[in-house]
Amino acid sequence: MDQPAFERVAAPPAFERVAILGVGLIGGSFGLALRRHGLARCVAAYSRTARTRELAVELGAADEASDSPEACVAGADLVYLATPVETIVPLVAQLLPHLRDDCLLTDAGSTKACVVAAAGRLALGNRVFLGGHPMAGSEQMGVEHATADLFEQRAYALTPTDATPPAAVARLTAVLTTLGARVLCLDATAHDRAVAAISHLPHTLSAALVVTTEHRAALGEPVYELAAGGWDSLTRVAAGGPQLWREILLSNRAALLDALDDYRGSLDQVRALLVAGDGEGLEHLLNEASCRKRDWKEKYRR
Amino acid sequence: MDQPAFERVAAPPAFERVAILGVGLIGGSFGLALRRHGLARCVAAYSRTARTRELAVELGAADEASDSPEACVAGADLVYLATPVETIVPLVAQLLPHLRDDCLLTDAGSTKACVVAAAGRLALGNRVFLGGHPMAGSEQMGVEHATADLFEQRAYALTPTDATPPAAVARLTAVLTTLGARVLCLDATAHDRAVAAISHLPHTLSAALVVTTEHRAALGEPVYELAAGGWDSLTRVAAGGPQLWREILLSNRAALLDALDDYRGSLDQVRALLVAGDGEGLEHLLNEASCRKRDWKEKYRR
Repeated sequence: MDQPAFERVAAPPAFERVAILGVGLIGGSFGLALRRHGLARCVAAYSRTARTRELAVELGAADEASDSPEACVAGADLVYLATPVETIVPLVAQLLPHLRDDCLLTDAGSTKACVVAAAGRLALGNRVFLGGHPMAGSEQMGVEHATADLFEQRAYALTPTDATPPAAVARLTAVLTTLGARVLCLDATAHDRAVAAISHLPHTLSAALVVTTEHRAALGEPVYELAAGGWDSLTRVAAGGPQLWREILLSNRAALLDALDDYRGSLDQVRALLVAGDGEGLEHLLNEASCRKRDWKEKYRR
Repeated sequence: MDQPAFERVAAPPAFERVAILGVGLIGGSFGLALRRHGLARCVAAYSRTARTRELAVELGAADEASDSPEACVAGADLVYLATPVETIVPLVAQLLPHLRDDCLLTDAGSTKACVVAAAGRLALGNRVFLGGHPMAGSEQMGVEHATADLFEQRAYALTPTDATPPAAVARLTAVLTTLGARVLCLDATAHDRAVAAISHLPHTLSAALVVTTEHRAALGEPVYELAAGGWDSLTRVAAGGPQLWREILLSNRAALLDALDDYRGSLDQVRALLVAGDGEGLEHLLNEASCRKRDWKEKYRR
């Protein structure tokens, strides 16, 4: 998995020390990918759990593990926060006295407006906080599922503000692009609104489908016995961590409720066609959905 | 892919001639699987499209292709109807004079009550119509996606009536079990109600999600650009054939509307938790969904 040595020498590592706080699926994959591409002289990882810290080093996601976040960030020129969304800014505030004066901080939280606004209220000095969100989550959590190619051909949102130095955006963009990601810079609020529709809404719909299925099963209907590929796909994400998703959904509540209302509108549209027995209208709607989905796949998942 | 000859000799084929009407994903896979397991002396296929008939033979889904359904069923002791759901009973009625007196007919339509009731009104004589539904569809349609293992470890519903001879049920069950399917016998109405919840509802939800996404895209939001694994899973089935699904959904309209109403109840439940900011309640619901989904996977998709 390592690059040949001469390539590493040809281009100096982008960062001297990268501190990864939270080495789960995302943090672990970021470490693996940085190391594969020789983008950091040293990757240090911190997790609250000792076993996760050990695993991170064993699996090659980090060169070293630190047993405190303070030790981890000491001397780091990039701090990568991949902890649950509600812990990100409190953690930055706690670590502030230990951060290098010129360090770049970025996070991998699923919601950006609250994180970016709260980070903006910290006295960061010369340090830069640049919000990020790799669109590469999975119901398979933990460093044991991390892979060096997790970000390849996946969207990676960055949410700079007017105060973010363009050089910081360019520097992180270059690193993420090297990891194979498709970087999109957008406003944190626009991010949250879009992500509500394409990630938080799908998760909600998925969980609600399992709830409906369970209601039916409780009535003695053979729903689980008959459930097949369609149900399996629709409910895949519902297997994800309940605690993690509770925080994600609540942190983007307003945008999610808005997306849910839009969705109920779409569902009512299909329902009305079914009630009316409008075969042509129904086929038109199904055809539009099929075409848009196929277009997306053609463009983004070839 | 063929079994060794001595195995075929050891157990005589279950059927002399199997006529497959409609060799798409399901019909084609049934032919491939029957031939792999040596369960038919001859598999004959019919499709309206000449190229599909040719492909069926080329790909090994059939020993021979017939250019009329009448020629296909002549002499067949098993007729497998894998045509769109609304065409099944009209096709049986049309073929009645050409069917062997002792033949067993089964279909692969997604909705059973209407098919079984209509078939029950035909003057079949000694022939038996036994409704079936392999829970093995895919958005990948056509004989070119057919595989001999499509039914392996998948549920296969059979919907006998009080009038169905148990021997016919046992005979078809034995064949399907040999193909690796998990056979479930149930009442056609119970089937339709369950399948509305676990197949037709998911398809509807999936299409509606693409509709919502497209609305957002039309407003200039970067939804397709950010869409990732969750959205991809939830919308996978929406890529399926609009004409096929129009008929499936309309053929099970009442049960689907019922499932949709149940689902709106589940969605309202999640919505109320979000509105109230009830983190504990939300986590409880997400945890239930996660556990039920994981239980299902453990039990049925190991």
